[in-house]
Amino acid sequence: MHGVERHGSIMAAEIAQQPEVWRRILADGAGPITQTARAIAERHPRFVLLAARGSSDHAALYGKYLLEVGHGLPCGLSSMSTITAYGATPRLDDVLVVTVSQSGGSPDLIASTLAARTAGAVTLAVTNNPDSGLAAVAEYQIDVLAGPEKALPATKTYTASLLALFLFAEALRDAGGARAAAALPGLAEEVLARAGEVRELAARYRFAERMVVTSRGFGYPTAREAALKLMETSYIPALAYSGADLLHGPLAMVDNVSPVIAVIPDGRGGEALQPVLDRLRARGADLFAVGPKEQVEQATTGFALPVDGVPEELQPLLEILPLQLLAYEVTIARGQDPDAPRALAKVTETH
Amino acid sequence: MHGVERHGSIMAAEIAQQPEVWRRILADGAGPITQTARAIAERHPRFVLLAARGSSDHAALYGKYLLEVGHGLPCGLSSMSTITAYGATPRLDDVLVVTVSQSGGSPDLIASTLAARTAGAVTLAVTNNPDSGLAAVAEYQIDVLAGPEKALPATKTYTASLLALFLFAEALRDAGGARAAAALPGLAEEVLARAGEVRELAARYRFAERMVVTSRGFGYPTAREAALKLMETSYIPALAYSGADLLHGPLAMVDNVSPVIAVIPDGRGGEALQPVLDRLRARGADLFAVGPKEQVEQATTGFALPVDGVPEELQPLLEILPLQLLAYEVTIARGQDPDAPRALAKVTETH
Repeated sequence: MHGVERHGSIMAAEIAQQPEVWRRILADGAGPITQTARAIAERHPRFVLLAARGSSDHAALYGKYLLEVGHGLPCGLSSMSTITAYGATPRLDDVLVVTVSQSGGSPDLIASTLAARTAGAVTLAVTNNPDSGLAAVAEYQIDVLAGPEKALPATKTYTASLLALFLFAEALRDAGGARAAAALPGLAEEVLARAGEVRELAARYRFAERMVVTSRGFGYPTAREAALKLMETSYIPALAYSGADLLHGPLAMVDNVSPVIAVIPDGRGGEALQPVLDRLRARGADLFAVGPKEQVEQATTGFALPVDGVPEELQPLLEILPLQLLAYEVTIARGQDPDAPRALAKVTETH
Repeated sequence: MHGVERHGSIMAAEIAQQPEVWRRILADGAGPITQTARAIAERHPRFVLLAARGSSDHAALYGKYLLEVGHGLPCGLSSMSTITAYGATPRLDDVLVVTVSQSGGSPDLIASTLAARTAGAVTLAVTNNPDSGLAAVAEYQIDVLAGPEKALPATKTYTASLLALFLFAEALRDAGGARAAAALPGLAEEVLARAGEVRELAARYRFAERMVVTSRGFGYPTAREAALKLMETSYIPALAYSGADLLHGPLAMVDNVSPVIAVIPDGRGGEALQPVLDRLRARGADLFAVGPKEQVEQATTGFALPVDGVPEELQPLLEILPLQLLAYEVTIARGQDPDAPRALAKVTETH
């Protein structure tokens, strides 16, 4: 379908590789991840700080939900500048610091991980580059095994990080996560085979001046990642809000010229989102639903996900796939190149 | 200037009340806040979770920077849904949970505060309503003394929460914060007397289709709050990014049709932002600077703040003032009513 000359052929190929990457993680990654988790469990962390930027920050947010809900471990997302710019010296014994970075090369992430280790934290790097500076400074590391990612917008490294974090969280409490995840690669193939559906839907958003993406609970990291993907490829300003925050102000901005994408988990996050969906429908919002078939049927349009029997905490891996495709197709429809958005560098040199 | 019939007269009056509110906090609030902080210091919290939504979430983020930089206390922003939707039962002994809410009435904040207290946390409510449900369930409370806020966009309760959190953080480590803050009400009066400057600048953004707001460190909560204020009053999609995150993707969206507001702290946050400002200038971005005079002179336009001698951690109180005025003036220029944005309710009933 996508010839080599076509804009975006690299991003398209990397989106398509995701089922294969997930199979690799389940086959080759699960063992080392389990060993790492067990070693960390013996250190009995009481708090978790997650540090990341960009797409990896959304993977870290997913990790926060996993560890808070499944383990009762209070978690925070790290504000790196408190260490790198202000020289804060936190007391971090009993704290697990998880740094997520596909490249493992961002200087500020390396510096903050090193500072955390010096301050007594157990440090874990989750990266697609086991030879990176980040992997070198962290006490433990997890390789997300996604293979080289060449398109500038992250796709396969994002879902690879989610799956690695899921397996880590399951092993940390000795649960059987790998079994629950076994069905995912096949389901991802089903979803990706429906790229034609997304291509038709993309026409709706070709001329959109702005978009709002919303969700709650485990779907919220997906909303954040989808908004970033749309922005960094198509340049459409896409604003992500948890459903609860949307009602606190930005709802004023939603009307019939602001289409809304709602990521609706099949589970408690989806239930908590229902009052927000009711308000959006009452306002006549153009609503694109990603979630179970019955949710899509109540929306303006959408993409029904095969989530029957998939635990809510694993649904984010499937939810993002049609939204990666949407970002890709909207960008193509606007005559731009998804592989190489202007101004974006693969390793971001922030200090 | 603003007659009672004019749209936005309530918001304008509440913006103007801020110096008086700050004087009240310094005179009447500082004593009780210090007592509360000393009682909490004796409990020796090791980790802080902050819970809030909307503008209060930005005040909470400011509190996170204060406590991480000044106290070395690892902090996290709470994902309420892990408790209220998923029933997570975190272990919270040694944890201080700070819930910030102007109304003190949001059911999910009350529920998550109660759950935290049950789970062993030291709980503190920071609210403008000492008789609220939130104040009733928390072990400790701080009244931010802003007086009734009637306009839907929060202004004086936001800066009152910042000042209360600053005094709390100073008292927690027995530092002399009240002295450093004494000059602020007078400086705020100077800034607010320059509303005419902002009115002229507002013409630049009347027809903007989107805006980007960026900062780093202590200025980052200001960037988030300014973006929300612009969106909920004028409906212009305004995207807030830390400077570091901006370079990770959304920079692709910044060009000569996306004006950028940069909040530039006079201090380490501003220094860390310089490479981002250089990149923005190199891209020819339309740059509105809020910060020291010499920073404004290097930007396309801006508003110079009187920050000489003001510690960096107190500058956020001044930074937001011209941006509140900007949101107000842009909204008036667009023929809309800043007092009553469509769809916004003062107490948001999320569960």
